[in-house]
Amino acid sequence: MTFPAPLTGVVPPVCTPLTPDREVDVVSLVRLIDHLMDAGVHGLFVLGSTSEVAYLTDAQRRLVVETAAGHVAGRLPVLAGAIDMTTPRVLDHARAARAAGADAVVVTAPFYTRTHPAEIARHFRLVAAGAGLPVFAYDLPASVHTKLHSELVLSLAAEGVLAGLKDSSGDLGSFRAVVTGARDLPGAGGFTALTGSEVVVDAALALGAHGVVPGLANVDPAGYVRLYDLCAAGDAEGARAEQERLCELFGMVGVGDPARMGGSSSALGAFKAALFLRGIIACPATAEPQVPLSEGEVERVGKYLAGAGLL
Amino acid sequence: MTFPAPLTGVVPPVCTPLTPDREVDVVSLVRLIDHLMDAGVHGLFVLGSTSEVAYLTDAQRRLVVETAAGHVAGRLPVLAGAIDMTTPRVLDHARAARAAGADAVVVTAPFYTRTHPAEIARHFRLVAAGAGLPVFAYDLPASVHTKLHSELVLSLAAEGVLAGLKDSSGDLGSFRAVVTGARDLPGAGGFTALTGSEVVVDAALALGAHGVVPGLANVDPAGYVRLYDLCAAGDAEGARAEQERLCELFGMVGVGDPARMGGSSSALGAFKAALFLRGIIACPATAEPQVPLSEGEVERVGKYLAGAGLL
Amino acid sequence: MTFPAPLTGVVPPVCTPLTPDREVDVVSLVRLIDHLMDAGVHGLFVLGSTSEVAYLTDAQRRLVVETAAGHVAGRLPVLAGAIDMTTPRVLDHARAARAAGADAVVVTAPFYTRTHPAEIARHFRLVAAGAGLPVFAYDLPASVHTKLHSELVLSLAAEGVLAGLKDSSGDLGSFRAVVTGARDLPGAGGFTALTGSEVVVDAALALGAHGVVPGLANVDPAGYVRLYDLCAAGDAEGARAEQERLCELFGMVGVGDPARMGGSSSALGAFKAALFLRGIIACPATAEPQVPLSEGEVERVGKYLAGAGLL
Amino acid sequence: MTFPAPLTGVVPPVCTPLTPDREVDVVSLVRLIDHLMDAGVHGLFVLGSTSEVAYLTDAQRRLVVETAAGHVAGRLPVLAGAIDMTTPRVLDHARAARAAGADAVVVTAPFYTRTHPAEIARHFRLVAAGAGLPVFAYDLPASVHTKLHSELVLSLAAEGVLAGLKDSSGDLGSFRAVVTGARDLPGAGGFTALTGSEVVVDAALALGAHGVVPGLANVDPAGYVRLYDLCAAGDAEGARAEQERLCELFGMVGVGDPARMGGSSSALGAFKAALFLRGIIACPATAEPQVPLSEGEVERVGKYLAGAGLL
Repeated sequence: MTFPAPLTGVVPPVCTPLTPDREVDVVSLVRLIDHLMDAGVHGLFVLGSTSEVAYLTDAQRRLVVETAAGHVAGRLPVLAGAIDMTTPRVLDHARAARAAGADAVVVTAPFYTRTHPAEIARHFRLVAAGAGLPVFAYDLPASVHTKLHSELVLSLAAEGVLAGLKDSSGDLGSFRAVVTGARDLPGAGGFTALTGSEVVVDAALALGAHGVVPGLANVDPAGYVRLYDLCAAGDAEGARAEQERLCELFGMVGVGDPARMGGSSSALGAFKAALFLRGIIACPATAEPQVPLSEGEVERVGKYLAGAGLL
Repeated sequence: MTFPAPLTGVVPPVCTPLTPDREVDVVSLVRLIDHLMDAGVHGLFVLGSTSEVAYLTDAQRRLVVETAAGHVAGRLPVLAGAIDMTTPRVLDHARAARAAGADAVVVTAPFYTRTHPAEIARHFRLVAAGAGLPVFAYDLPASVHTKLHSELVLSLAAEGVLAGLKDSSGDLGSFRAVVTGARDLPGAGGFTALTGSEVVVDAALALGAHGVVPGLANVDPAGYVRLYDLCAAGDAEGARAEQERLCELFGMVGVGDPARMGGSSSALGAFKAALFLRGIIACPATAEPQVPLSEGEVERVGKYLAGAGLL
Repeated sequence: MTFPAPLTGVVPPVCTPLTPDREVDVVSLVRLIDHLMDAGVHGLFVLGSTSEVAYLTDAQRRLVVETAAGHVAGRLPVLAGAIDMTTPRVLDHARAARAAGADAVVVTAPFYTRTHPAEIARHFRLVAAGAGLPVFAYDLPASVHTKLHSELVLSLAAEGVLAGLKDSSGDLGSFRAVVTGARDLPGAGGFTALTGSEVVVDAALALGAHGVVPGLANVDPAGYVRLYDLCAAGDAEGARAEQERLCELFGMVGVGDPARMGGSSSALGAFKAALFLRGIIACPATAEPQVPLSEGEVERVGKYLAGAGLL
Repeated sequence: MTFPAPLTGVVPPVCTPLTPDREVDVVSLVRLIDHLMDAGVHGLFVLGSTSEVAYLTDAQRRLVVETAAGHVAGRLPVLAGAIDMTTPRVLDHARAARAAGADAVVVTAPFYTRTHPAEIARHFRLVAAGAGLPVFAYDLPASVHTKLHSELVLSLAAEGVLAGLKDSSGDLGSFRAVVTGARDLPGAGGFTALTGSEVVVDAALALGAHGVVPGLANVDPAGYVRLYDLCAAGDAEGARAEQERLCELFGMVGVGDPARMGGSSSALGAFKAALFLRGIIACPATAEPQVPLSEGEVERVGKYLAGAGLL
């Protein structure tokens, strides 16, 4: 497919359903993709943080991209995370994603290593030169421990290195600097700015974001499509109301007991429990070494769903 | 081989020589290993941070372990890093390392993801259960962004999950808590405590460390063997003098201009430049996206070597 | 005065003009306050970060509050920062601010010390009990190294401990949780949520913020009042355009050379240079140990002002 | 007094006994100082972190220095912390400490503000020029969120700005760089390097530290004097045994339940409970907003004391 420039709309970071043995559950993954497409989403992002990419082996990553790209069959753009520590390893993932049918790759700055801004720029240039696909920068300081500064993103965009940004930094001011700065890029209009927020999607769209990549869209894709449409129609009040409803639903990420588990176990556990309770995936297991939700915690997820009319 | 319990002595984290095209330079790697063994080191640690493990592809990692294990052929224990974000990915590396001939694996806490102490414990338990080799915990908060607390290390050691600790935290107080606590473990004496420091090796050995894993030992393995022997002989004054000489040599890690590169480019660049200048490896290249040292910076490395009588 | 509940509108964090000898320049401070009031601001926040509170001695802090409260004379509410490491020291500042005529105090979580959420809650309770003035929580993780979680803020608001929040965390999602959660508080409508952002003021107001505390409002108070009015009138397009103009002007905070100075020297230096160039304060000096802007950097501030039609 | 250059020996950071109303308990403070002097300590450091300096009001700080300096009356050097966010505020504290009789001041880098190395250097230069007393740099990254690099410390020492360093960074390698580098300073031998560690005092002294400032020396000053003497006598084995005994006693800092309190409440609470149980201070209260130890936690402190033969 010709990759849309810019890519607009709702692009859920697709959860990776697992079997009780922690293998990729291909049937559930296909069912989840159908659930998302039926709700009218505009693209799919596989192998992101919400997809538990950090936990998937190379074989599992390949299977996820093949399954998604094969099932979507060009009806929507499929972006794939190529998440690893440094350039050579990212390039291996990017080539595998391309071979498996991805339409674009999403890449963070190097992590685990000590990085310098000049090395980050070099990293993206080398990845773009070798990936054979459009490259989106993935700004996720909570994981990467480096913030991608707006100047760096814009200068790499101006060079043609970056096709877009997926911003999960939580820093809307810096995201705005990219959004407004991108208007003046050569070949204007081609650069895509996506927010990874679940809770300020209305604000991000109002200031010019092209699209949104909320993990919660796995659970309620129709809600985010509705929110996107309200924003596109300029209905600020309606958008705010829908966003606030989704914020309430998003409360489910906190069901896990912080004395027993980390934020990832709680949030991804809740999304998967919700998909399981809604009958979309066959098993709510998360990857190792994440801790499973207790029965009571799953019940609380159910209450969030019921409150949102999703059960 | 029967893995020594505890492992004692100097166990250099072996640099990974690269060709100008950034492929593993097997001939140089073998020459480097001979250089280390000739100096009398007591073990080898491949695929650690100093080995640029974060930059090596899976194929390159395999080649490094095969080369090292094959060449050493049981004369020394070969530990291999199995460095990745989470349990399933670490297990893939651990199994590959085992198949390639490693005698033990060295494993960090999960990174990139948000981790909870209970999840870290679960991670090490699952890795130990699946690796088929002794597991060393690798405490490297600068990369992992989590500190392995001494209580956790000791309790996993007591369970038989951990065979040892490689401490690169810089926190000698916490390391001491492991060293002294390990004396009371069941099957006492089996647990190995290694320090990754270059500059307080004498202190670490004085308080009971079994061995040392200094990156600088690539450049001056004989110096660290001498230091180890002086400590073993109880010659505190002699050890201090040798350690101070090595501290001065270690200054080379700062040759890189911080306006142009990160600490990794500077430190690993200096080690490799030193090995190149000493005629041990054929090319001083570091992996992408690290920035190469300038000519003037390489000259400064040469001055450090000359000052230490190593040129 | 009866403190407004909620407080709405533009509440600039007032710069503290200094003489070349680094004493408070009272005449310039009065002129600056007039400049702000003439532009129609709705309140004043003295002794905040933009006021260089961290650099002012106790005597200088007192003089600033006395000057501001005396000159304003009840025409507007005057909030004063009571910024120090722990409860007893904050209480001393709060009492001094009250004696000097402040209408409310703004207080961070403890810093420098290692804090626990329970200790933070205890801190705010004790300050509220002893201050004799309404207490605003000041969320500034860049300085305090702790984030005030929305649940904590809301629960302290429900107890009557907090009158409001000044959010400078940059995390609009968390701020939204306070704004929407505050609607359900007992005595609803009394709690004040203020954003400290310069660059997403339109977004913060759209999601329900009561007021805005942008440091840049020292330089262009009329711009922020205009922006507030556009938002209040529901003119999203007009608000966005005005906000984008202010974002461009805000670029001045980056004029300082990062090789020579920190972010505070650059940003506060730029604000003061702008006030000096606009003829509002007599001297652009910042407090020690901040580094002054160079002549060329001041010229660049001038270009920002000219570009915004403010020179 | 002529301040010793270098200052050597055990210099406890003196706890600040409080009454149940959280006023300075002068009688207990004098008794504590006598307890320390009777044990043979070589200096006193008041208003450090262990003294709860961050919690004491200016009036309380003054009272502590006056009490200590008055009671010591020149028999030992008295160092006083001058702990605040920036230069002007630190200078106020330094002058107050001097007026109250302190012999030297101990000063951190600026905190709360965003600092640049050049600003940190400027800060120490201005403090040294205005304090009228020898200035020790206090390296405490856990509180200050900046590490004082050895190069900076040494260059300020060479300028005559710094009389010494109190290192509580936990980074013994960096401390060693200061210790060895200080030997080559002009007027060699004058610069004092003190470690704030409780648990690697033997190691710090072995590598050349002049003195030690362990908080635990409030509880067992005789133990640290013994340890210092063993190190001075070159009895490495004896020193190690004494240090390990003190490490075990130091375990008391962990008695506080981390679900209920922070590290400061636990550690300082334990020291004060121990002093109370030993009959040296009249009340174990810590300053607000710290959380008090429970009865059971105090009992555990008692067991640590009993185990060390101190009850």
